[in-house]
Amino acid sequence: MKRIKKTALSAFFLTLIFFVAQGQKPMDADSVFIRSLHEKALTQLSSYNWLTDICTKIGGRLSGSPQAAKAVDFTKKIMDSLGLDAVWLQPCMVPHWVRGEKEVVEMTGSQSGKTPLHALALGNSVGSPAAGVSGEIVEVKSLDEVDRLGEKVRGKIVFYNRPMDPTKLETFQAYGGAVDQRGSGPSRAAKYGAVGVMVRSMNLRLDDFPHTGALNYKKDVPQIPAVAISTNDAEKLSAALKKETVQGYIKTNAQMLPDAPSFNVIGEIRGSEHPEEIIVVGGHLDSWDPGQGAQDDGAGCVQSMGVLQLMKLSGYRPKRTIRCVLFMNEENGSAGADAYAAASNLKKEKHIAAVESDAGGFTPRGFSFDGEPDVLRTGFAKVGKWSGLMEPYGLRFKKGGSGADIGPLRSQQPLLIGFEPDSQRYFDYHHTAIDTIDAVNKRELELGTAAIASLVYLIDKYGL
Amino acid sequence: MKRIKKTALSAFFLTLIFFVAQGQKPMDADSVFIRSLHEKALTQLSSYNWLTDICTKIGGRLSGSPQAAKAVDFTKKIMDSLGLDAVWLQPCMVPHWVRGEKEVVEMTGSQSGKTPLHALALGNSVGSPAAGVSGEIVEVKSLDEVDRLGEKVRGKIVFYNRPMDPTKLETFQAYGGAVDQRGSGPSRAAKYGAVGVMVRSMNLRLDDFPHTGALNYKKDVPQIPAVAISTNDAEKLSAALKKETVQGYIKTNAQMLPDAPSFNVIGEIRGSEHPEEIIVVGGHLDSWDPGQGAQDDGAGCVQSMGVLQLMKLSGYRPKRTIRCVLFMNEENGSAGADAYAAASNLKKEKHIAAVESDAGGFTPRGFSFDGEPDVLRTGFAKVGKWSGLMEPYGLRFKKGGSGADIGPLRSQQPLLIGFEPDSQRYFDYHHTAIDTIDAVNKRELELGTAAIASLVYLIDKYGL
Repeated sequence: MKRIKKTALSAFFLTLIFFVAQGQKPMDADSVFIRSLHEKALTQLSSYNWLTDICTKIGGRLSGSPQAAKAVDFTKKIMDSLGLDAVWLQPCMVPHWVRGEKEVVEMTGSQSGKTPLHALALGNSVGSPAAGVSGEIVEVKSLDEVDRLGEKVRGKIVFYNRPMDPTKLETFQAYGGAVDQRGSGPSRAAKYGAVGVMVRSMNLRLDDFPHTGALNYKKDVPQIPAVAISTNDAEKLSAALKKETVQGYIKTNAQMLPDAPSFNVIGEIRGSEHPEEIIVVGGHLDSWDPGQGAQDDGAGCVQSMGVLQLMKLSGYRPKRTIRCVLFMNEENGSAGADAYAAASNLKKEKHIAAVESDAGGFTPRGFSFDGEPDVLRTGFAKVGKWSGLMEPYGLRFKKGGSGADIGPLRSQQPLLIGFEPDSQRYFDYHHTAIDTIDAVNKRELELGTAAIASLVYLIDKYGL
Repeated sequence: MKRIKKTALSAFFLTLIFFVAQGQKPMDADSVFIRSLHEKALTQLSSYNWLTDICTKIGGRLSGSPQAAKAVDFTKKIMDSLGLDAVWLQPCMVPHWVRGEKEVVEMTGSQSGKTPLHALALGNSVGSPAAGVSGEIVEVKSLDEVDRLGEKVRGKIVFYNRPMDPTKLETFQAYGGAVDQRGSGPSRAAKYGAVGVMVRSMNLRLDDFPHTGALNYKKDVPQIPAVAISTNDAEKLSAALKKETVQGYIKTNAQMLPDAPSFNVIGEIRGSEHPEEIIVVGGHLDSWDPGQGAQDDGAGCVQSMGVLQLMKLSGYRPKRTIRCVLFMNEENGSAGADAYAAASNLKKEKHIAAVESDAGGFTPRGFSFDGEPDVLRTGFAKVGKWSGLMEPYGLRFKKGGSGADIGPLRSQQPLLIGFEPDSQRYFDYHHTAIDTIDAVNKRELELGTAAIASLVYLIDKYGL
């Protein structure tokens, strides 16, 4: 298309006109400052360059890995360069799971013969015996179905194949409705004697990329090998099972090593009036190993650091303490989140708000607010007054979930805030080999940083 | 990230609760129907498959090309399969510009030597003489600067290098602020005796992909060859010019052949109560040649056909006539748009609304409304009453531009409506070799179709 929009006035001025037309006083200084945060984000932020380096020079950063250690050093150096009031590493012990050699996963139909499947061992899963495990494949759509089958799955491989619900507008809801198969499916199958588990990847598309992710073994149930297979292969396997008996083979080489030392990376600008009131912005520094952890959650890390950079670029001196935390080990243990909350409680700190960016670096759409009932009621009413300032940027406020890493702070009664970018593409990349820097658009990423910085600015200026 | 959102209620039900809380009567039937349009779009639409075929089996569809002819046949067959009340081809004569052999464009610094540049001839441009054109390169930032230089550009190559403004939130505004260099720059330079023109690609990113697009030669000024160079090369050339004199070389092989016969592709469902009131949805079937014309504007075509498919899938019998038009030749002449409006005027048709999708198949954000002042005032007030129905889908209404292909209908006084998807990534692909099916996300595309269908449904049901 070659047309030129006639819209001569920017959304910003339209908003001012709207305020005037409504007889309301525009919050001029705030409008102007938020506009300048967006302009600086689109022209001066380093977020995208940082992310490019994290992705291409370090890559996937599984907890306990040499890459995770490199990412700690690299992001600490970035924070050291920002002229903050303090930067430090906070120790934590993390699970140290290693994938080992490439998995071999196959299906062999009684008539159609052997087909290799695109597969990844699930995080935290055990390796198979050296010879692999074999068994007839039984397809199910739910954990309940396994309960109903009971002893019929003994000696077999259970194949969980309930797709994410495509009719959910928010893809995280579709994820939430399917991920129990990955998290709890292996132990449920093992309870009845299954020897292995295949799970349809948590992916709304049909493609060849398997999506890994954590499983949680239940105590007192045998630990059996479990893999995710690509959605295309899940369709292929399901079609074969309608026509013939199919034998499965799983050979994985994963193991859980002893816990390893690691760190959260933290930096802050101290408040000029209420330094004791802390506003946290954070993402998680660890990632799954097959890709570069670009959208999950390198994006959230560089946005969180970017918020502090934007404050510095703007010469803004916050009244309250604004702290960036890059949490370690969100993917398979949350050790960093727990260590951060424990240390904060021990120091009797008071977090008034915590913002988590862990849904990718896509075009920002808004924020989701959570917290203890009283805090949420008061806080949501307060931020609601700022909605006119955020609306020109397409940002909406709602109540809902926030994030896994800020959850442990709940006892300090902060307003818990999840940054919500557009979610349509997230599960194309999530936990796959294609979660690379190519999946990130620079402007979308930077607009997210500006959105978070704008909300943090308002919370800092007006309190909660 | 692995968290599961706590939000148990969908956006849809939250909206109903909102209506109830506000003491307003929810438009239940409309809410439910719009929800069902979205669910059907996400599960049953053929748009993405159609687009995949158009992109991979046909490819770029420049007006007058064999590919454009194939696209006419292919999309007519699709419409024939939808069970519409009428499908027809509407003839028009289109400019027939051909690129010819690959361009050769070089810069040669007095010290740094020769460097080939990533370049594409601008659409409608003449070819160079067989030996190419050479001249010292003069960098400018505007047409005015060429006027000020005047005779100083004689015998030289003018290099337009004013970037798109990255601080514009809507990328189309940034495009509108820079594209005069491509459209009018060549004739302005030729007026003072320049022998060739290089234009910085209309692209907000720094990369190696040149972006073509139409130029408009002015009458009575010599026609000189003109090319777009990639943004990376523009930066490189500009840096060289700060240090040394740089000679340019342009060899292009384009030519404008005699006008060729082509067609708009049209299908409609006739209205049951007011068949004489027409609501058009459309995109343009032609595209530039280097890529597959996926986002520009294959997306708009399959969405427009998808609107009719959705009506059929829903068993919805419109009161008014809903017509899909795939316009030919938007990119370099608008012959299809002119032919459509002329034929419609001749038949004394009455379009009450026209919706154009020509901004890509990204996540829908809203609609922009235009028209004659009275029509716009009344129409915008009317659609404003529906904003509560669209808001759960993140759709907003504003006044502004609409689209190039529906513009010629203005004399019939329709409400002119531009579909507005998220614009951040559009100019990464626009008029390049990477505007391919890979640039399109299936869910984003389908949600766009659902958004347009929802608005068309409301206009059809309630009139304007």
